[in-house]
Amino acid sequence: MAKQITLYTAKICPYAQRVEIALKEAKADYTSCQIDLQNKPVWFAPKINPASKVHDSHHLSSPPEEPSDEAIRLAESLVLVEFVADLFPESGILSSDPVERAQSRFFIEVFTTRFAPAHVGFFLRGEPFEGVVKGIEALQALLPPEEKSKFAVGNRFSVADIAVAPFIARLQTALTNDLGLFEAGEGKKLWEKVQSDPRFERFRKYTEAILERESFKATYDPEYITKAYGQRFALFKAQRSAASASAQ
Amino acid sequence: MAKQITLYTAKICPYAQRVEIALKEAKADYTSCQIDLQNKPVWFAPKINPASKVHDSHHLSSPPEEPSDEAIRLAESLVLVEFVADLFPESGILSSDPVERAQSRFFIEVFTTRFAPAHVGFFLRGEPFEGVVKGIEALQALLPPEEKSKFAVGNRFSVADIAVAPFIARLQTALTNDLGLFEAGEGKKLWEKVQSDPRFERFRKYTEAILERESFKATYDPEYITKAYGQRFALFKAQRSAASASAQ
Repeated sequence: MAKQITLYTAKICPYAQRVEIALKEAKADYTSCQIDLQNKPVWFAPKINPASKVHDSHHLSSPPEEPSDEAIRLAESLVLVEFVADLFPESGILSSDPVERAQSRFFIEVFTTRFAPAHVGFFLRGEPFEGVVKGIEALQALLPPEEKSKFAVGNRFSVADIAVAPFIARLQTALTNDLGLFEAGEGKKLWEKVQSDPRFERFRKYTEAILERESFKATYDPEYITKAYGQRFALFKAQRSAASASAQ
Repeated sequence: MAKQITLYTAKICPYAQRVEIALKEAKADYTSCQIDLQNKPVWFAPKINPASKVHDSHHLSSPPEEPSDEAIRLAESLVLVEFVADLFPESGILSSDPVERAQSRFFIEVFTTRFAPAHVGFFLRGEPFEGVVKGIEALQALLPPEEKSKFAVGNRFSVADIAVAPFIARLQTALTNDLGLFEAGEGKKLWEKVQSDPRFERFRKYTEAILERESFKATYDPEYITKAYGQRFALFKAQRSAASASAQ
């Protein structure tokens, strides 16, 4: 039975990028359908649902906006990354060793509970950068010595690296372009601190290793992210100024 | 090479119970070591770390408080449940079908983001029960029709059921014994509402199915939970009264 995978995705979204990296690693044959998150097509909610989904259909010919009734709709980036690993075990993105599989999932759990909320807080709610620093420290503490492996778990690029790369890349792009809810110049300073502080050396090497991966580069568009983040933060700052002016 | 599994657990903890249910389903040979969460043994933090862990050692003879240097320490209940599923694929707690595996993980994701925070908020922060009701509705919406399966995914007891059963059981025990940060009598009323409201019928049938599972019953001690919750909530209420008196 022929199967077709359609990924509903958005370039700006780090969660969606996870799934696309996994599909590239698996050399999967799939159709990518870009969704404008600010202006979703009318067929999206009723026919597909949330933002990032692999739709695994038994019909090769159905267009993305008209999935067949038999199409299986799946959502949630980490569920989808594991789904890709299960569909394509030969991709090697999830080790066949139970201990390494558990270590990859534990790394993701630490990222999800320690890094991601601080990252969102910093970018979307203007919380201090210190939370992101603590998230970096928590991840770094789990990394193996560089001479043992340049990746998070085992000796190969895995679901653990896939889960974090899109977020670290966006952090780098935003700070080096000084885009965020902070004073002008602060973003670059923060990124320089992460780059020069000796205590982050292992994290820096790790960042280099995962961001030079082909599957990552093929799914990340720094120019697009810079432009989109620029517009987003300009809007946030304007809203903040308006709220502050009306409060006075 | 002989392997030994030691589970560091605590009867009161729903997260730890998940792992023990999985081990029972897998008919795994393991040692259970009860940890008093209010008064952890001194060797626990340095030698083992957090509360609930499977320690998978290559040495059959090491006692729980003296794991060998080669022992592999793993933590986080969902990571450990998947670890048990990977170690014992014949247990059937995780389907071999990629779609069913994804559906089980999605069910757990909905539980984690929609039910669990409301459950914690209700019991530990005295938030309204309405959040738990919404969590029940979110889970219920994912359940298959009863004539198709009595469990969450596929036609057998899976990691999806394992993830939720300990929480639903504790909700039932606490409410039917009127234990919580609410006025006396409110707990029983809430449980009666869940039991009698026609819109929760599917959820009730599901609850019956998972709570009558042998692996669940063998790892749940309602008398112990009733006593422990009784002490815990009496303490919380006393602290709340003291805080309220000192504020006046």
